[in-house]
Amino acid sequence: MASYTAPLREINFVLNDVLKVGRLAETLPAFADATPEVFTEMIETAAKFCEKELFPLSAPGDAQGCTRHPDGSVTLPDGFKEAFHKYAANGYVGLPNTTEYGGLGLPYTMAKVVEEMACSANVGFALFPGLTTGCFEAILANGNEEQKNTYLPKLGAGEWAGTMCLTEPQAGSDLGAVKTKATPQADGTFKLDGSKIFITGGEHDCTPNIVHFVLARVDGAPAGVKGLSTFVVSKFTLNADGSPTTARNGVTCSSIEHKMGIHGSCTCVINFDGAVGTMIGKPGEGIMNMFVMMNLARILVGVQGLGLCELATQNAIRYALDRKQGKTFNGQPTIADHPDVRRMLLTMKAVTEGARVLAYETGMYVDLAHHHEDAAVREEANDWVELNTPLVKGYCTDMAVDLGSMAIQVYGGHGFIREHGVEQILRDSKILCLYEGTNGIQAMDLVRRKLFLSEGRAVTRFFALVGKAATDASPDFAFISEPLKKALSDLEFATRWIHETFKSKPEEASFGCCDYLRAFSLVYLGYNWLRMAQAAAAQGDENFKAAKLNTARFFASKLLTQVTPLCETVKSGAGEFMSLPAAQLAA
Amino acid sequence: MASYTAPLREINFVLNDVLKVGRLAETLPAFADATPEVFTEMIETAAKFCEKELFPLSAPGDAQGCTRHPDGSVTLPDGFKEAFHKYAANGYVGLPNTTEYGGLGLPYTMAKVVEEMACSANVGFALFPGLTTGCFEAILANGNEEQKNTYLPKLGAGEWAGTMCLTEPQAGSDLGAVKTKATPQADGTFKLDGSKIFITGGEHDCTPNIVHFVLARVDGAPAGVKGLSTFVVSKFTLNADGSPTTARNGVTCSSIEHKMGIHGSCTCVINFDGAVGTMIGKPGEGIMNMFVMMNLARILVGVQGLGLCELATQNAIRYALDRKQGKTFNGQPTIADHPDVRRMLLTMKAVTEGARVLAYETGMYVDLAHHHEDAAVREEANDWVELNTPLVKGYCTDMAVDLGSMAIQVYGGHGFIREHGVEQILRDSKILCLYEGTNGIQAMDLVRRKLFLSEGRAVTRFFALVGKAATDASPDFAFISEPLKKALSDLEFATRWIHETFKSKPEEASFGCCDYLRAFSLVYLGYNWLRMAQAAAAQGDENFKAAKLNTARFFASKLLTQVTPLCETVKSGAGEFMSLPAAQLAA
Repeated sequence: MASYTAPLREINFVLNDVLKVGRLAETLPAFADATPEVFTEMIETAAKFCEKELFPLSAPGDAQGCTRHPDGSVTLPDGFKEAFHKYAANGYVGLPNTTEYGGLGLPYTMAKVVEEMACSANVGFALFPGLTTGCFEAILANGNEEQKNTYLPKLGAGEWAGTMCLTEPQAGSDLGAVKTKATPQADGTFKLDGSKIFITGGEHDCTPNIVHFVLARVDGAPAGVKGLSTFVVSKFTLNADGSPTTARNGVTCSSIEHKMGIHGSCTCVINFDGAVGTMIGKPGEGIMNMFVMMNLARILVGVQGLGLCELATQNAIRYALDRKQGKTFNGQPTIADHPDVRRMLLTMKAVTEGARVLAYETGMYVDLAHHHEDAAVREEANDWVELNTPLVKGYCTDMAVDLGSMAIQVYGGHGFIREHGVEQILRDSKILCLYEGTNGIQAMDLVRRKLFLSEGRAVTRFFALVGKAATDASPDFAFISEPLKKALSDLEFATRWIHETFKSKPEEASFGCCDYLRAFSLVYLGYNWLRMAQAAAAQGDENFKAAKLNTARFFASKLLTQVTPLCETVKSGAGEFMSLPAAQLAA
Repeated sequence: MASYTAPLREINFVLNDVLKVGRLAETLPAFADATPEVFTEMIETAAKFCEKELFPLSAPGDAQGCTRHPDGSVTLPDGFKEAFHKYAANGYVGLPNTTEYGGLGLPYTMAKVVEEMACSANVGFALFPGLTTGCFEAILANGNEEQKNTYLPKLGAGEWAGTMCLTEPQAGSDLGAVKTKATPQADGTFKLDGSKIFITGGEHDCTPNIVHFVLARVDGAPAGVKGLSTFVVSKFTLNADGSPTTARNGVTCSSIEHKMGIHGSCTCVINFDGAVGTMIGKPGEGIMNMFVMMNLARILVGVQGLGLCELATQNAIRYALDRKQGKTFNGQPTIADHPDVRRMLLTMKAVTEGARVLAYETGMYVDLAHHHEDAAVREEANDWVELNTPLVKGYCTDMAVDLGSMAIQVYGGHGFIREHGVEQILRDSKILCLYEGTNGIQAMDLVRRKLFLSEGRAVTRFFALVGKAATDASPDFAFISEPLKKALSDLEFATRWIHETFKSKPEEASFGCCDYLRAFSLVYLGYNWLRMAQAAAAQGDENFKAAKLNTARFFASKLLTQVTPLCETVKSGAGEFMSLPAAQLAA
């Protein structure tokens, strides 16, 4: 059996010692009460909940899956409904949502910490509150007062659940191909007709109502993304006071998908047959409205990846420290002293702990971007969010797959057996690399958009910050600051090459986009490990300090060194590989 | 739905144009009839069988799985039993087995080609004949005349099925911990008592009898591997004429495992309760006897990996050439013209086609080692088999996982859905990295044993051969011969470093063993791609030639270049990472 213990020591170290999360309470009046003590308390309570309520439902939920009944209703695995109610009642759905609409009004950063733990414990479950928050954010950003008053108090507190209805069979990565039609009605509402696929939480009985945020095309609007608008559609029609009637709107679940993993989450085909909805925001601004939510959803997906990285890592370490098999060179009893197993365990630790800093820091930038009183600070924080989003989404989810596979490898043959629980990590993780923009799309977002934002302001600032940190580091940290300087320099060269190449030869510049995203993320993690090493050196706990410095050394010598060859590959471009006619691939 | 078309053009190109498989018929009297024409005919027939009989059972078999009934009997998915009979009747189980014992006496190389196709089509199914052949090989190598006469005609033709009963809960990678006890009886037989896990095909109703090859310890024998012997145990007791009675021997299946993949294959817990068996070979030589079979089984597992690489690659290409999504830079209609998708497809092609040469060439060395009349040739061929085995097993199976994951990535969200069939590739592939020695063990086998065999004779010969091929290549092939020289030089340096380091600091030398195996395999594939490029240049089919040369260029510039940084990592050793007490990993 897999197990899960929230890594509280690690979480608190990152929040307090590395990222100084107290800055939020100090600088953001909105969060004056969210002191480090409040963080600690909330996180400890949530940790217990995730360990004791969510984790025990994960393996059974995977085995049972969701069920669609002949009447189109869908039930989740046993216990999920009750767990959702408790999760909402504890305030976790509404944790970052404004108190005006049912939320706790606490920092987004804190929500990411809770979500990391919830995703470690039960990622299939965690999708329901995740989508609900996404729907909340979309309506908050662009809804009118009536829409906000109708939906946000319910969504904000997790009384109702929410969805994102974007994808259609012919419109996945390319949402411009969306066909779902919205026909204006005399009363200002719209009737929606069409079919959406891959709708997480599209139908279930967890909550008395479900709110669908829908991308559709007003009848007669132009083709492509410019013709898209966003709508809100309620599963049940609403009374004048906003309470749901017993009458169903024209929204039905025609089937649920059988998937590789996240069996606890229902992935629905949702049909809109004259479903009544109202437009969110302005006509033709659908993609823009969607991206309000999508950008935050991408960070959440990255946090899902972080959660699975943590689950893989702690189980592999626990198993390796217990399993005796074969003679080690150093005479130690367990497989953790076989060199290749040790290499895997240190890789897992180095990636997970480094990725945690990236994810939490991105959360802090979201808080600053949303709440700082100084517009210049908000602008800078927003640059960071823009830059970091593809890194968090792309890197943390790629690593969830790699570390899930590595955990199985540490377990040996036992890892392939369901009851040991680690194979579920690999099965659950792969979807993270696909939804909310495939990781190839994240890499293109980085190369094509983020590098060029405000004439490269965000990336230039990142390079300067990392460079300064490496230069300012005392010689005690040369073991990482020196390789970091080298990696940074190579990344800057590769970045300049992309800058110079993209406009005239976009294929050339983007052929290595995934390698570039990887290199960029590794440099970011190098910066994180430098900061963690510095913070750890000041710790009193000698054991913790030694472990942290050892992992930092491992990162510096075994992982950060990958940046140079990755950048070489990036700069080698597409060569002739794009000029070959595609059909020859099948020759 | 996934599909499978046997890559006959590619298979024939490798066999005839690259590896000159005609050499087998020319130089080995045993295979005088196995001309290239016979190869082609046998392979074309087998291809149809795999496409039409095995592949259609793969997805249903995955969904249905195996069933253990309350009486301990086990049934395979619908159609598997009939397919096994047809597979055997067509001669595929017995293809490489000696005609003396029911086989067709054809080259091992040809068997690997058929197995590649069978594993592409249905890897869960292909395990049954695979294990049967393993059991056959073990008895052939060390059984006495009576044992050979009793079991080999049945196993050799696939009338009965066979198993390998090695693993126990406490004895996985470390078989020295095996506890199953063999008590000598007055009549020269042994009674076996103990429990074995992970026994593929341990119980089923496919064949009228099952033959178990069992690793056990004679009562009173020393602890560790030196106390182990091997035994043959029949599921049913046998009549004097060797036909099975209706009386069960003391061998029962107490449960079957629920696994991540290969659901079509039953993985059994097998209990021996006073089961009567006879000893194969001499007491205390169990591990040695087992390795006769294990070494060949490792090559087979590598071929399983190759089969899944092929399945992943051809489905990803087919899907990408059909799927329209988003605007490409070059205005081409399908996602195969998005740079990152193109990169994935070319990576998949370059790996699969290069790995095929490695696997088939290893098969040819097995044939030469077993059948050449000149002892010196046999010795050299045997060196190659020894050296190549960990490469075939480790590299091809790691790549099956990577390419399985990449196929899902090419499909986007659809790849995560079962009905598209590619997620099964990833689920089926991971076991390949675990059984018959984890890939970490393969890497240690390479670093610890194969590099040092006969004072490094095998590896020195490999370096000389690759070096000469690169030096002799005409300037037309400089695009690959030059990077190959560089990669080879780096690999030689890393090899020398391991040689010099291992004896005094084995942990230091083996910390990067998996990176070393990867680097070694890439150099081997570089050599393969040079030979493929040269052979393709002589082809009349311009389309084929262009595609092959393009993929060779891709391998040279994007994959072969990974050797240098991998070797750097190898040489950076273990540093302080092994001296940290293991418990600190959980600090």
